[in-house]
Amino acid sequence: MEKIEIFDSTLRDGAQGEGISFSVDDKLKILMRLDSFGIDFVEAGNPASNPKDIEFFRRAAGINLKKSKLTAFGSTRRKNTSCGDDSNIAALIDAGTEYVTVFGKSWLLHVEAILDADSEENLSMIRDTVGYLTQKGKKVIFDAEHFFDGYKDNAAYAIKTLKAAAEAGAERIVLCDTNGGCFPDEINDMVKLVTQITDVPIGIHCHNDSGCASANTIAAVKAGARHIQGTFIGIGERCGNANLSTVMPNLQLKMGYRCIDEKSMANLTQTACYIAEIANIKLAGSMPYVGRNAFGHKGGMHADGVKKDPRSFEHISPEKVGNERSFLLSEVSGRSAVLSKLSEFDANLEKNSPETMRIMEKLKKLESAGYQFEAANASFELLVLKELGRFQPFFRIEHFYVVSAQNYAVRDVEKSNAMVKVKVGDKCEITADEGDGPVNAIDRALRKALEVFYPQLKKTHLIDYKVRVIAAGDSTAAVTRVLIESTDGETVWTTVGASKDIIDASLMALLDAIEYYLYNTWEIKRKEAELKIKNKMQERF
Amino acid sequence: MEKIEIFDSTLRDGAQGEGISFSVDDKLKILMRLDSFGIDFVEAGNPASNPKDIEFFRRAAGINLKKSKLTAFGSTRRKNTSCGDDSNIAALIDAGTEYVTVFGKSWLLHVEAILDADSEENLSMIRDTVGYLTQKGKKVIFDAEHFFDGYKDNAAYAIKTLKAAAEAGAERIVLCDTNGGCFPDEINDMVKLVTQITDVPIGIHCHNDSGCASANTIAAVKAGARHIQGTFIGIGERCGNANLSTVMPNLQLKMGYRCIDEKSMANLTQTACYIAEIANIKLAGSMPYVGRNAFGHKGGMHADGVKKDPRSFEHISPEKVGNERSFLLSEVSGRSAVLSKLSEFDANLEKNSPETMRIMEKLKKLESAGYQFEAANASFELLVLKELGRFQPFFRIEHFYVVSAQNYAVRDVEKSNAMVKVKVGDKCEITADEGDGPVNAIDRALRKALEVFYPQLKKTHLIDYKVRVIAAGDSTAAVTRVLIESTDGETVWTTVGASKDIIDASLMALLDAIEYYLYNTWEIKRKEAELKIKNKMQERF
Repeated sequence: MEKIEIFDSTLRDGAQGEGISFSVDDKLKILMRLDSFGIDFVEAGNPASNPKDIEFFRRAAGINLKKSKLTAFGSTRRKNTSCGDDSNIAALIDAGTEYVTVFGKSWLLHVEAILDADSEENLSMIRDTVGYLTQKGKKVIFDAEHFFDGYKDNAAYAIKTLKAAAEAGAERIVLCDTNGGCFPDEINDMVKLVTQITDVPIGIHCHNDSGCASANTIAAVKAGARHIQGTFIGIGERCGNANLSTVMPNLQLKMGYRCIDEKSMANLTQTACYIAEIANIKLAGSMPYVGRNAFGHKGGMHADGVKKDPRSFEHISPEKVGNERSFLLSEVSGRSAVLSKLSEFDANLEKNSPETMRIMEKLKKLESAGYQFEAANASFELLVLKELGRFQPFFRIEHFYVVSAQNYAVRDVEKSNAMVKVKVGDKCEITADEGDGPVNAIDRALRKALEVFYPQLKKTHLIDYKVRVIAAGDSTAAVTRVLIESTDGETVWTTVGASKDIIDASLMALLDAIEYYLYNTWEIKRKEAELKIKNKMQERF
Repeated sequence: MEKIEIFDSTLRDGAQGEGISFSVDDKLKILMRLDSFGIDFVEAGNPASNPKDIEFFRRAAGINLKKSKLTAFGSTRRKNTSCGDDSNIAALIDAGTEYVTVFGKSWLLHVEAILDADSEENLSMIRDTVGYLTQKGKKVIFDAEHFFDGYKDNAAYAIKTLKAAAEAGAERIVLCDTNGGCFPDEINDMVKLVTQITDVPIGIHCHNDSGCASANTIAAVKAGARHIQGTFIGIGERCGNANLSTVMPNLQLKMGYRCIDEKSMANLTQTACYIAEIANIKLAGSMPYVGRNAFGHKGGMHADGVKKDPRSFEHISPEKVGNERSFLLSEVSGRSAVLSKLSEFDANLEKNSPETMRIMEKLKKLESAGYQFEAANASFELLVLKELGRFQPFFRIEHFYVVSAQNYAVRDVEKSNAMVKVKVGDKCEITADEGDGPVNAIDRALRKALEVFYPQLKKTHLIDYKVRVIAAGDSTAAVTRVLIESTDGETVWTTVGASKDIIDASLMALLDAIEYYLYNTWEIKRKEAELKIKNKMQERF
């Protein structure tokens, strides 16, 4: 299988995405994760434009990377300057990386309208910069910015810019669809042509403004590119970059190329979740391969089909990318979807077992009361555990009291105040806290009380909170459904609550979120203890 | 320019997306919006599988659609049954639509493993169903489910299924990549082949499991397909369907095909936002063309470049799709859209009038605080009236106080209690009421106080109440946006509020809802009075 080099720019181009802001620590964490995943190149920042990036490269130099080559990013020298006098070039060298990525202009429009340079000067800037850096012992990856737009505008000139970089010693020439407007067939034609005129390995860098970044990257590989740039979860300027978590499995699992180890591929979903967590964004449930719904079957017919033969509605096996098949429960899906979920708890449960009947009954009742378990796996699991008698409550709420008030003479919005009393075993804890609105106040007070008994809860927090009113009529009194997503930094779980009262509904979902976490941490400890006993027994005999 | 037929399945395949649940009212709203946008076909549900869909088709029959053909969806007849004895086929006919979409199996794996039928029986099922429905006066769109996987597995058989449908009278044959695993070059080859063997117009239906749904749809059109299926904002089973808000501008603005009116294209972003709003999901900021960040420039170099020449970092002009260039993270609605709305109030308002500038400024401020006026016409109108100096407040809230408490010894959920003081002119009214949850309690108390002065408010009530949390982080404390729909039995109006505090946000939307009604009833009276005076004057002379 032919190897395709993977170049991840999450830390550079990804940082241009909406709402993305990495600290130096964030960047180091992601670097180490990409390294252990097996990414070939990690582009991590522009030391000339950002003092944080200088600190990053200083600290990264102390890390012993197993696989990834770290690369710093910068532009060709300024016009009318020598490389030795250009502080940006100096910063690029000072970053101390074996590889540097240099971008230069391949589109005359940019040379003239943006740089205010002439066509020859731009070629010199490319030639000088690549040559100078090569002479200084750097290996240079040349990003031909706007190559495809440039080629459409003036093919001969665009090709000249590539030749300038190649002749000056560039080790890779990367064709960039900087504006993201290209289509696969154009990419295919132009990449093919370029591979015929140079021996330097060709790379591809796509943006998603036409929704074709993945397809364009694949088209380039088919046309001869052997180096692909993108970001692990597709974040980047405007509509984002080519999503490596889509492109890598496409190339490796379906097209016969090799991007990374098979073992790493089985870690794709976890790695994507980790990066999203550090970036503090919610991974789209529908993201190909790694979204939590990428193998989620909702329609009854689809759920039935997958059970008969997974190929019937899945293009690959989810475990190959570390994801899971799931059956979303909904009005449309039938009993078989529920059954297949139940079998995860107890393989002996059958369609007509009394437990199954009881759980189905309970589900129906809750769904008609406004609950919806489709997206709330954790609440569903708790419900099943409770019905199977495997769950013991960790605490009880005795009462709560929450006040929200507003005096419009003073226009600052006042905080809401909540008081909560909880009971754990025979011990009680009563406390209070304030928050923005009644739900936030009660969440804070409840956690404050419970953390006295369960300090591990400090590791958990909410990452999403959704509210939906689900019946017409006098609608502020209609049933409110609340969905809460929580995390402990490693996993994510979703819980649901429903009630006519938004506070009550929120509280149900909050309680499930906390109970689910306590149960699972307790289960892990229980299993560890069991294992210890087993080991001791074995030692004894 | 060659016309491409657009077939939207938001209401059918889109409803299979995670977390999507449309009420009948939601579906009717989306249908009307797609119709006014100019979509050729709207697939709206499976009357055989869902009683809600039967009600939908009954009510939709009363709507006079300008452009869209409504279509019901269902499968071929059951095996070993005649069409006349098949209740699913009967339901399809009863839906009363001119067009019906029938899906049948093109992959032998499915025929054998899922249907447990033999290859000949499957062909009869297709032939019989299409023929029977055609005879009953329906125009049939045949969805060849899993066509591409079927073709790869057994090309001859897959083609036979298409021929069976074509010979029985199907008006369109739609090739489905049901598992979403195909790539553009495969799609291109297979579509080309199919167009050579039949004269029936060919359609394409793609899913996004390889991240290539848009590229695949385009590849099919280039290969000869003239009918494309997808969902307006890409929602659908697993990784979603081909996103029409990406595919339509790709085809029309960049490839020279015609999908819809130019005027509608300039409404693309607004329509996508509206559908997302009804579906109660957040449109990804990075979505091509319509995402609020699709033309957002964060990098300094990019922002500078775009200011010098927009082509430098934009593949199309954002106004062509009703979107806007932005240089900030906080987003605002398109100025051209706002302008066209303003002209409804005052035809003299121009782009650079001081009033326009002031209103744009205010909008930007409110939108960055979490407001969104796309679906909240009434709040937008009030804002404009206030800025134009045409609105005098009808009342003022002095203060409120709301208490929610719960004693879990008694498990009945207790009501929340609210106390409100309002001032009208120089008169005050203080009162209290109780409700299900704090928002309902405050709504009731507020109306009770105001009805003393404005008894006409008794005619109004809320019909929908939607809550969305719109920032990540410690999420019960993030900004909450509330949308409220109100009615007086004759008209419906929508208002918005946003705040970190859900009570505060709800109150803003409630106040707008009440003020909007009072203003309009007052306006009507004022105009009647004017008319009376005029008439009297005329009598006199």
